[in-house]
Amino acid sequence: MGSATIFFWLQLPNVTKNYRTALTITGIVTLIATYHYIRIFNSWSEALTVASKDGGDYTVQLTGAPFNDGYRYVDWLLTVPLLLIELILVMKLPQAETVSLSWKLGLASALMVALGYPGEIQEDLSVRWFWWCLSMIPFCYVVFTLAVGLAEATSKQPSPAAASLASAARYLTVLSWCTYPFVYMVKSVGLAGPAATMYEQVGYSLADVLANAVFGVLIWAIAAEKSAVEESGKLLPN
Amino acid sequence: MGSATIFFWLQLPNVTKNYRTALTITGIVTLIATYHYIRIFNSWSEALTVASKDGGDYTVQLTGAPFNDGYRYVDWLLTVPLLLIELILVMKLPQAETVSLSWKLGLASALMVALGYPGEIQEDLSVRWFWWCLSMIPFCYVVFTLAVGLAEATSKQPSPAAASLASAARYLTVLSWCTYPFVYMVKSVGLAGPAATMYEQVGYSLADVLANAVFGVLIWAIAAEKSAVEESGKLLPN
Repeated sequence: MGSATIFFWLQLPNVTKNYRTALTITGIVTLIATYHYIRIFNSWSEALTVASKDGGDYTVQLTGAPFNDGYRYVDWLLTVPLLLIELILVMKLPQAETVSLSWKLGLASALMVALGYPGEIQEDLSVRWFWWCLSMIPFCYVVFTLAVGLAEATSKQPSPAAASLASAARYLTVLSWCTYPFVYMVKSVGLAGPAATMYEQVGYSLADVLANAVFGVLIWAIAAEKSAVEESGKLLPN
Repeated sequence: MGSATIFFWLQLPNVTKNYRTALTITGIVTLIATYHYIRIFNSWSEALTVASKDGGDYTVQLTGAPFNDGYRYVDWLLTVPLLLIELILVMKLPQAETVSLSWKLGLASALMVALGYPGEIQEDLSVRWFWWCLSMIPFCYVVFTLAVGLAEATSKQPSPAAASLASAARYLTVLSWCTYPFVYMVKSVGLAGPAATMYEQVGYSLADVLANAVFGVLIWAIAAEKSAVEESGKLLPN
């Protein structure tokens, strides 16, 4: 995540002004994720200890300190609206549409994360499902808006290469986003204890790398391709 | 806050020279806030402990170490005058007016913070109210000057988009500033103990995000819009 941030920011001079705000935000998303993954790492290390008794096998034990999954939700509360905004910005829609889409998708996605958290910290399975269902309402709205909106935007890209990248961003968005509700269900189907928490953490972490870093690389590729088209356009007579 | 700093500074090359000082200061405000929030976070962590006894529910307990709210006042003493100056600079008033307004509002707002602190660290309710009232004198002067001055400045902005952003900055200033005296009153109306401190900290933190980071984004948007107007003006014959 941290390396992705540095990559995006060092690429800023290589794209035209039109895409610098998108690329700046792309790097901020992975920076915020880097910070929270360090917090999650430290919380995980404090909650678990690995030790060998009398030279025997190493075993993992709970230390009694809580593993705080709240860091992940604070991370999402900040990064999810921002990564939707970076996607909207790189599409370079008319300004009024950019502003209205950013507000609508940004607020809906923040609501989605906020509604997921009360269920995530619950042991009671029916309460978990209740919040999962509530959170799925803004989730479906955002994913549907993206799938439709990106299909439209794809056809308006200035070159075949940009169109194929925008189409890849569309599939990656739908794929990575749909991972989260399934990982959330790991504990809702009755799995519990440290093993379930481990599967959940692995799932969320993989989905985050796809949705933040890999997705960011696509945003950069779109910005670079469109910058190249704009710059070659300047040199040609109309 | 830290992400906001990086965003503002990475945007420096994208605005004209006229707005770079404002944008630099905008990033300094959120940087100072980042530093103090790390201090506040550490002080909070040292004052409280979360533990589970014998595998039971996790409970929050006081460790006996003090939670030092002084960091917040030192933060405000530096950031509040600076954020008023960033607002004055982005309005691009005549130079004499910029200097005189910066001095007047900067000193009044520093006085406001300094007069608030003696009451904040008091348990005695009447003493809290005494300092609250004293601090409200410079507070009212600053908010009134801003509300009137920004209304005037709004009408002089070079484009409708800049005027609507300046108007948004005006409302956000009044809204975010008015949050503080109410949060201060949480403890003045007789609430006490860790819960009251928690509500107070949540309130101040939300108000700070609005007054520093969100307000800073508005300052950047004004600077970007006015830079675009200035740059397009250069290309056109008058």
